[in-house]
Amino acid sequence: MTEDVSTPSAEHHEVRYDPIHGWPVIFAPPRAKRPNSILSPTAQSIPDSNPFAEHNEYLTTRESYADRQPDTKPNTPGWHVRIIPNKYPVLSAPAGELIDEELRTRNEATGCHEVIVESPHPVANVCDLSDDQFLRIFLSYRARLKVIANEQRYAHVTIFKNQGRAAGASQPHVHSQLMATSFVPPMVSTEVEYSRRYQLHMGCSYFQELIKQEIQLGTRIVLQTDAFSVFCPYASRFAFEVHLLPLQPQPHFHLATDHEVREAAHLMKQTLVRLQKSIGATEFNYILHTAPFADDSSSGFCWHWEIYPRLSGIAGWELGQGSYVNPIYPEFAAETLVSV
Amino acid sequence: MTEDVSTPSAEHHEVRYDPIHGWPVIFAPPRAKRPNSILSPTAQSIPDSNPFAEHNEYLTTRESYADRQPDTKPNTPGWHVRIIPNKYPVLSAPAGELIDEELRTRNEATGCHEVIVESPHPVANVCDLSDDQFLRIFLSYRARLKVIANEQRYAHVTIFKNQGRAAGASQPHVHSQLMATSFVPPMVSTEVEYSRRYQLHMGCSYFQELIKQEIQLGTRIVLQTDAFSVFCPYASRFAFEVHLLPLQPQPHFHLATDHEVREAAHLMKQTLVRLQKSIGATEFNYILHTAPFADDSSSGFCWHWEIYPRLSGIAGWELGQGSYVNPIYPEFAAETLVSV
Repeated sequence: MTEDVSTPSAEHHEVRYDPIHGWPVIFAPPRAKRPNSILSPTAQSIPDSNPFAEHNEYLTTRESYADRQPDTKPNTPGWHVRIIPNKYPVLSAPAGELIDEELRTRNEATGCHEVIVESPHPVANVCDLSDDQFLRIFLSYRARLKVIANEQRYAHVTIFKNQGRAAGASQPHVHSQLMATSFVPPMVSTEVEYSRRYQLHMGCSYFQELIKQEIQLGTRIVLQTDAFSVFCPYASRFAFEVHLLPLQPQPHFHLATDHEVREAAHLMKQTLVRLQKSIGATEFNYILHTAPFADDSSSGFCWHWEIYPRLSGIAGWELGQGSYVNPIYPEFAAETLVSV
Repeated sequence: MTEDVSTPSAEHHEVRYDPIHGWPVIFAPPRAKRPNSILSPTAQSIPDSNPFAEHNEYLTTRESYADRQPDTKPNTPGWHVRIIPNKYPVLSAPAGELIDEELRTRNEATGCHEVIVESPHPVANVCDLSDDQFLRIFLSYRARLKVIANEQRYAHVTIFKNQGRAAGASQPHVHSQLMATSFVPPMVSTEVEYSRRYQLHMGCSYFQELIKQEIQLGTRIVLQTDAFSVFCPYASRFAFEVHLLPLQPQPHFHLATDHEVREAAHLMKQTLVRLQKSIGATEFNYILHTAPFADDSSSGFCWHWEIYPRLSGIAGWELGQGSYVNPIYPEFAAETLVSV
């Protein structure tokens, strides 16, 4: 079997199992040929009343953080990146206890839900921002995470971006979101747990081992530096899915060095530009997986960014069975993204 | 705490945990107010070259089952419901062994992927079909499942429907799909496993206990008969999500009696009509959860249908963390659906 030497043939169907989460991904290349199988991006124009633009600060909630020019005041013009509480928050502050009534377990939805406005100018596509602005965004992510970590009120924090209507964005102006929760979200908790068991049984970090193997095989690598790797995962759920992570495992993104943040920002932009140039993917989600605050480095967990281009819809099979269908093998996706 | 007496207030945020799958669902009522939060259905017109219409049988693959008029031949007109192999199959027949290469586990994607064409006439909305036609569809589901079960080639079979572009349908003509797999899909396997442990520890069926409690509480019930219950689950992932199941647990839908199939079909149509009348939900998925073929009734598992109206998009948080945000409490959803 030579699956790792080259891309499987266009007619070959295969089920691959995600090593951590276990979900089966059915690779079905002919599916890409069916009618309407690839969604065209929906145009989103930015309205004049854009609340995220500079000078419209009075239209938003009051900022919790900003990267701003010296001598400018909070909630006034003069900022590069601005973080504000979400006007329609999914979570809000007051704490509540867990209530367990046999089959009905719940608690107050405590947490913090903020918007990171990524530019003072009305831009809809994050690829149109300068490298410098991209770096400012990533530094702002880290700065705000650090403050929340120090507050010690929440168990975990996630940063994610929805770009484009198909990816769930309701505001077209470039922005991402931050969600600090009193629970550890299922995917991160599964990854940390898996990583901990791997470390215990194998004596090394799962993430480090994964990357070592990926670099050796080479068929799924998109970008590679001395300290970072960008690759298409073996059991990718989505067509052209890409993950980005440092080679040396470290649990917390908020503890990354300036140099690491700079490299992550640079590689993220390069990846997004390649996705756009090669397949026109301007609608996507990216999401940070960072360890729960309470975790130390003993699990070998490694923070990473996951990018999901939104080229097709999510249908009954995915929502109802937790299995996925992907028309594009990651080997082909990586080859395409490398060749741009 | 009176959460089960009435619908929580519009400003109340709550996290509820799915008892089986564990995913946290954040109920955030104000979210429904944000711009573009509820999707309008996309109009899908049926083209003249519609391959699913009667007389166009030559445009499709050859039928594997049909409910047809006496004295008509396969692959000719004269049918009520017709099941054909998917032209763009996700899975196809030949069997393959599991290949485990440390972090990369995979096998040949074996299985069977078929389309159930639900009417000979060009209809886009399943609610526009007669009660008799609805029953024929459900009887066809059972008939085809029974044949596949008897073939003993696959581990499990799922039937699901994607109606509308937002729900993932690429063909507007009313149809659903059948996927027989060599693996048990994660959600069913988790449910069977949970149910088995519940039965072992509690001495009764989880599903029976759940329904008993729901009927006692009454606040989430949409429709109720002597033998069936239709309700909005406590930790619904999606706005206006509805589940439909028999009160007496039984693992396999393909072993349901004529009477049970008739009742399930009737209640499904009633539910879909109510969803359409009350909130205009014409884009949705429904999916059958039935036990793996190898399972007996000892786990207390119960087949059921889940309905997910597609009123909002799936964004980064859901895809990247496996947690959900729902702006509509199930108590409010049930109240709305009952009052139509």
